[in-house]
Amino acid sequence: MSSSDIFISETIGTAVLILLGGGVCAAVTLKRSKALNAGWVAITFGWGFAVLTGAYIAAPSGAHLNPAVTLGLAIDGATKWSDVPVYIGSQMLGAMIGATLVWLSYYGQFQAHLTDPELVAKLDEEGLVDRSAAPKAGPVLGVFSTGPEVRNVVQNLVTEIIATTVLVLAILNLGLTKGLAVSGTGTLIVALVVVGLGLSLGGPTGYAINPARDLGPRIVHALLPLPNKGGSDWSYAWIPVVGPLVGAALAAGIHQAF
Amino acid sequence: MSSSDIFISETIGTAVLILLGGGVCAAVTLKRSKALNAGWVAITFGWGFAVLTGAYIAAPSGAHLNPAVTLGLAIDGATKWSDVPVYIGSQMLGAMIGATLVWLSYYGQFQAHLTDPELVAKLDEEGLVDRSAAPKAGPVLGVFSTGPEVRNVVQNLVTEIIATTVLVLAILNLGLTKGLAVSGTGTLIVALVVVGLGLSLGGPTGYAINPARDLGPRIVHALLPLPNKGGSDWSYAWIPVVGPLVGAALAAGIHQAF
Amino acid sequence: MSSSDIFISETIGTAVLILLGGGVCAAVTLKRSKALNAGWVAITFGWGFAVLTGAYIAAPSGAHLNPAVTLGLAIDGATKWSDVPVYIGSQMLGAMIGATLVWLSYYGQFQAHLTDPELVAKLDEEGLVDRSAAPKAGPVLGVFSTGPEVRNVVQNLVTEIIATTVLVLAILNLGLTKGLAVSGTGTLIVALVVVGLGLSLGGPTGYAINPARDLGPRIVHALLPLPNKGGSDWSYAWIPVVGPLVGAALAAGIHQAF
Amino acid sequence: MSSSDIFISETIGTAVLILLGGGVCAAVTLKRSKALNAGWVAITFGWGFAVLTGAYIAAPSGAHLNPAVTLGLAIDGATKWSDVPVYIGSQMLGAMIGATLVWLSYYGQFQAHLTDPELVAKLDEEGLVDRSAAPKAGPVLGVFSTGPEVRNVVQNLVTEIIATTVLVLAILNLGLTKGLAVSGTGTLIVALVVVGLGLSLGGPTGYAINPARDLGPRIVHALLPLPNKGGSDWSYAWIPVVGPLVGAALAAGIHQAF
Repeated sequence: MSSSDIFISETIGTAVLILLGGGVCAAVTLKRSKALNAGWVAITFGWGFAVLTGAYIAAPSGAHLNPAVTLGLAIDGATKWSDVPVYIGSQMLGAMIGATLVWLSYYGQFQAHLTDPELVAKLDEEGLVDRSAAPKAGPVLGVFSTGPEVRNVVQNLVTEIIATTVLVLAILNLGLTKGLAVSGTGTLIVALVVVGLGLSLGGPTGYAINPARDLGPRIVHALLPLPNKGGSDWSYAWIPVVGPLVGAALAAGIHQAF
Repeated sequence: MSSSDIFISETIGTAVLILLGGGVCAAVTLKRSKALNAGWVAITFGWGFAVLTGAYIAAPSGAHLNPAVTLGLAIDGATKWSDVPVYIGSQMLGAMIGATLVWLSYYGQFQAHLTDPELVAKLDEEGLVDRSAAPKAGPVLGVFSTGPEVRNVVQNLVTEIIATTVLVLAILNLGLTKGLAVSGTGTLIVALVVVGLGLSLGGPTGYAINPARDLGPRIVHALLPLPNKGGSDWSYAWIPVVGPLVGAALAAGIHQAF
Repeated sequence: MSSSDIFISETIGTAVLILLGGGVCAAVTLKRSKALNAGWVAITFGWGFAVLTGAYIAAPSGAHLNPAVTLGLAIDGATKWSDVPVYIGSQMLGAMIGATLVWLSYYGQFQAHLTDPELVAKLDEEGLVDRSAAPKAGPVLGVFSTGPEVRNVVQNLVTEIIATTVLVLAILNLGLTKGLAVSGTGTLIVALVVVGLGLSLGGPTGYAINPARDLGPRIVHALLPLPNKGGSDWSYAWIPVVGPLVGAALAAGIHQAF
Repeated sequence: MSSSDIFISETIGTAVLILLGGGVCAAVTLKRSKALNAGWVAITFGWGFAVLTGAYIAAPSGAHLNPAVTLGLAIDGATKWSDVPVYIGSQMLGAMIGATLVWLSYYGQFQAHLTDPELVAKLDEEGLVDRSAAPKAGPVLGVFSTGPEVRNVVQNLVTEIIATTVLVLAILNLGLTKGLAVSGTGTLIVALVVVGLGLSLGGPTGYAINPARDLGPRIVHALLPLPNKGGSDWSYAWIPVVGPLVGAALAAGIHQAF
């Protein structure tokens, strides 16, 4: 497959992944949304079906949609190292496009939410006058990127590593049973594994398990002209990048030894 | 396949889609229903499994059940343009039959809900003496048709366009892997994609993503002899028709360039 | 297949269906259950996966598990009329065994619930001194059988007829695509259709859509030595028997004309 | 397949099962988790998808992940008796590894929860000065092991026996349709059956239905240096071991007679 075909497929697929994944976070957390407070089950199934939809659309390129998956497959030998930069570049671009589409889809909800007097007061109360320095993820950053409930570098890294190891191990094992990974059932199962990872390991950090899923939308959050949006929490930004990549390498190692 | 076979298949299939889709809205919102307040997860899975059930029953005609899907497939060349009027006509008729069956199934709930003094008082309070002029979707119109939480023509159109683009793109790509679309797994995946679209992009407008799904039941709402039913919100009615058709054309364009 | 093989398969399969279906009702409604108040989504998925589990176990006999399904298949010619009595007899026996197993599994919860002073007072308050004459389904009867929220013979019948028509139509159409019905995917899809029917059409009557599912457990409710159990609501008992049978005949008729 | 291959596969697979299964319990019950109070639907789907993920990863060894399944398959003749000790040993080891990984993933949540003044006061109030003698499962033990809502040896055993009989019967019947059990659909269906068992029969005891799932994490609970963790409820520990094994034997017996 040519580089440009990979590029188009992964860009569109990752854009759909982040549109639907970020979308469900917007749906459940922003004021004036019909799904407000629909809860954790809605969020985890929303992200899982975002994977399902994005993966179908990106089937031509194998639907990595995630630099950690690309790294795991490259170490495992299933993806050429020379293709890795194209995959990761298109995933980052796709994630940024997807996050922008979330903003367009929920434009009125963002406006209603961010100009809500209660929220603005809460941000002021926390002393976030210089909002770019906001020390923790606010309700709007959560539509774009992940953030920990208990801020602890070691635990947060460990949680992201463990969750991504399981994800990549499952994907590598699906590859073993040739034909399954590209058929409907294989993609469906990966999507449900992602639902499961969210339900089971999403509690501490919000399960990035994908560097592009976290970093791309965080950049968009920093750039978008949203009022009262708070900071983009850059001090945390390296953890959902490094953790998933370490987890992917670990999974590839376990898989090779296995 | 003959026109009359398409007509019968699409009419029955769309009737089942709207019976179950409108049904879950009735179940969750009307008084004296066992599912009252079952929430957004119930609604989105209800609509997704409505697609699943309707699609199985309409398998002979390819189970479009949606003028936007028919348009996307026609542009893509998978459906003959000469069949398009039959598809769309039967989908509209089926949607109207389905909405009527919802009313029959929930007859006692509609009565209990609409003659509830609290609701009637609320309608009066909002000054809706001439209920046919009700400016926004009331709780009973929501059983039939969609309506926006924030009324903004541009955003509402954009949201419907984006959501339908994703839907039709996924369906066109499933078609690529021949055999999948008509097998159990292909239909199941489209149904789960619809659950995902609802969870992720349903917050702002209630995700019509289907002109027949919205317009057919809206006509039935206008015709049914329901007490205190409020207006049918005709000023909004064109958005869930135009938005999905634009989204379908966009998806077909992306798919051809892809 | 011999009559005795059908008998064993349908008895065990229907027992599992009712054990898991009645079980989820017990789980969600009885005091001292971990799932108390888990809601309508839990109930509908519980019944759907009860169908899935029972259907796998009863695969040898085609997993009807429901006299309405047997009737629909017999009219359609897929099941011999001479086998119908064996199917229905074993389904009734299985349903009674399943309801008894629910009682055994939730023995402590039934005791805790039924001797709860609040509940007992509520029963007294409603003047149900002669509890066998209780005019509406009590909280414990709901673990066994269905009951309407709005008691209206015509509407209740109509709702059961419509819901069963959709169920049997979907099953008959699955049969069209030979091989699917007996494979994993076919059974899975029927199970999800049942989840959908519950979400969408369960609100008014609790969706019996199966005479054995309702009548068998109702007999067990009448026989079990439960304190303060209230009446078995026999005046309603014919509706979830007649409605589903009419719906099945209607579905077979539509299918033949189709 | 060699013993060491079985050992590696079952150890990793069971570790993933318990990591995700225990993980969802931690997610829903521990303070400072994003999924706090996400409810019974989250727990049951979390455990089901834990089975799905673990089963894919342990596909090479047939993915028993459960001594009761191993016993059922051995009685049925599908697994050699000489392999049984390797299976059970690796399942116990894997379960202990998985429970430890839950602790690492939720380290900050355990700390926040267990040093919460309210919880500590509640433990004191119940007179649990010698916490190792705590008579019932506390909120943290529930992340590791099961415990009954109504403590009644006979009922608790019966519930575990019935639930495991259904589980093993379904697995043995899936084996009948060769090819299904090892394909994607077969594993998916077992996972959904486990969701169903949780929804329907999990109310009384928390559905261990797997001796390793309960005993392994209970040992880890006893060993981990958690403050205020309460006792490990050893007096109950034999029930989720004996019940599932009896259920598996019963299922194998029914299956052979069938």
